[in-house]
Amino acid sequence: MPAPIKPIAVPGSPPAIILVEPQLGENIGAAARAMLNCGLESLRIVNPRDGWPNEKAVAAASGADRVIETARLYDSTTEAVADLRHVYATTARARDMTKPAVTPHQAGLDLRRFESRGESCGVLFGPERRGLTNDDVVLADTLIIAPLNPEFRSLNLAQAVLLVGYEWRMAAEAAQAPPRSPRRAVKGEGPPATKAELIGLFEHLEDELDRSGFLRVKEKRPVMVRNLRNMLQRANLLQHQVRTLHGIIVSLTGRPRR
Amino acid sequence: MPAPIKPIAVPGSPPAIILVEPQLGENIGAAARAMLNCGLESLRIVNPRDGWPNEKAVAAASGADRVIETARLYDSTTEAVADLRHVYATTARARDMTKPAVTPHQAGLDLRRFESRGESCGVLFGPERRGLTNDDVVLADTLIIAPLNPEFRSLNLAQAVLLVGYEWRMAAEAAQAPPRSPRRAVKGEGPPATKAELIGLFEHLEDELDRSGFLRVKEKRPVMVRNLRNMLQRANLLQHQVRTLHGIIVSLTGRPRR
Repeated sequence: MPAPIKPIAVPGSPPAIILVEPQLGENIGAAARAMLNCGLESLRIVNPRDGWPNEKAVAAASGADRVIETARLYDSTTEAVADLRHVYATTARARDMTKPAVTPHQAGLDLRRFESRGESCGVLFGPERRGLTNDDVVLADTLIIAPLNPEFRSLNLAQAVLLVGYEWRMAAEAAQAPPRSPRRAVKGEGPPATKAELIGLFEHLEDELDRSGFLRVKEKRPVMVRNLRNMLQRANLLQHQVRTLHGIIVSLTGRPRR
Repeated sequence: MPAPIKPIAVPGSPPAIILVEPQLGENIGAAARAMLNCGLESLRIVNPRDGWPNEKAVAAASGADRVIETARLYDSTTEAVADLRHVYATTARARDMTKPAVTPHQAGLDLRRFESRGESCGVLFGPERRGLTNDDVVLADTLIIAPLNPEFRSLNLAQAVLLVGYEWRMAAEAAQAPPRSPRRAVKGEGPPATKAELIGLFEHLEDELDRSGFLRVKEKRPVMVRNLRNMLQRANLLQHQVRTLHGIIVSLTGRPRR
């Protein structure tokens, strides 16, 4: 079990933009500029290829300096999402995963609604060349897929950030509309689990399944773990449900959580 | 009086994107890429600063070659709009001119409507540093102003092209969008579990939790069972996932299913 990660997202604040392993400083800067165009300021960066700080990022930000200066660095996507309650992954096409997919427009509406309930959100963007890995996508609740030209889908990184930020900004007035997202926590049910809590649950379960031999076939383990995590993600678990599931694992195995 | 210019816009074709005196080849290429992302292919360029063709434009187009190759060059904005029936000018803020202003969203809807009536349209974008001159704006019927962050409005050229192209594309999608139901099984993933299969899973789990003592408090048992069932329902499990969960219970308890 990793040490608990200190939450930093302020409830009710705008979504964090999370760039996973971005390659070019220019693109990080252009993304920061697009964010500030839309009023977004919380930038998280996972393992930028050319290190950090990056002069080319500052130049390309064209004045969006405070987004660059306050950007937070992370060693892994897992750490970058740990304090968030709702995570979106931007992908060019649907993956072979059991995840709902929404348009940027619907994502904008949903992000506003989560925000108004004080539930922290983030949106993952993959590196320029290959996009997000399946292991990154697993950490998300929902995919964002822009319905663009099917023959030429691949957006520049900063362009993808702009579309999400733009729809988030446009959704401001629609935020009062009745909820359309069936995956929200129902009012009065208690808060949704943070990603750190979910990851703690995944690890507890996988630990016990390693012991019991369920995950013994080494070549199959990564895909089995990914499928399990996707399945549990999808249940949109609440905090108290995560505690219940820990209790169930302990009870079934007769062994306390390490 | 200039010589009459032969019309080239095909009635009923998508709007032309008109870049007025663009400075950087990179930005022309990025604009071409954004256009093709949205399905727009008609690019017009007025007096590009660094001449034409431009290698940096080709590189930045990232495969949107046919937009670059078929781009038309003009000596003046007047010539570039001569064959069009409806011209929009993108500006960061309202000018001191008697012109209606619309959002990119409204412009997308209007462009589609003109297109369906066979009326050719174009959208003007100014140079990176200063935007359109008043003389250019005069040629437009309507301004497009994106309601962005009032403290940081200035969009990169390709970003501005993307917003207009995106809203033009969405204006068509809106009419044909399938009803949204994000909790359905994704095609190709296999069938969702039947209720009978789900109940079989509930009973297997509850059976083992009775044995292990997790459900030992009699008065609490009904509510605990209901909560567990709700939680598992919510995951919208597929048939093969139900089988996996049976396997997990068997593995954790070390006891075959009865």
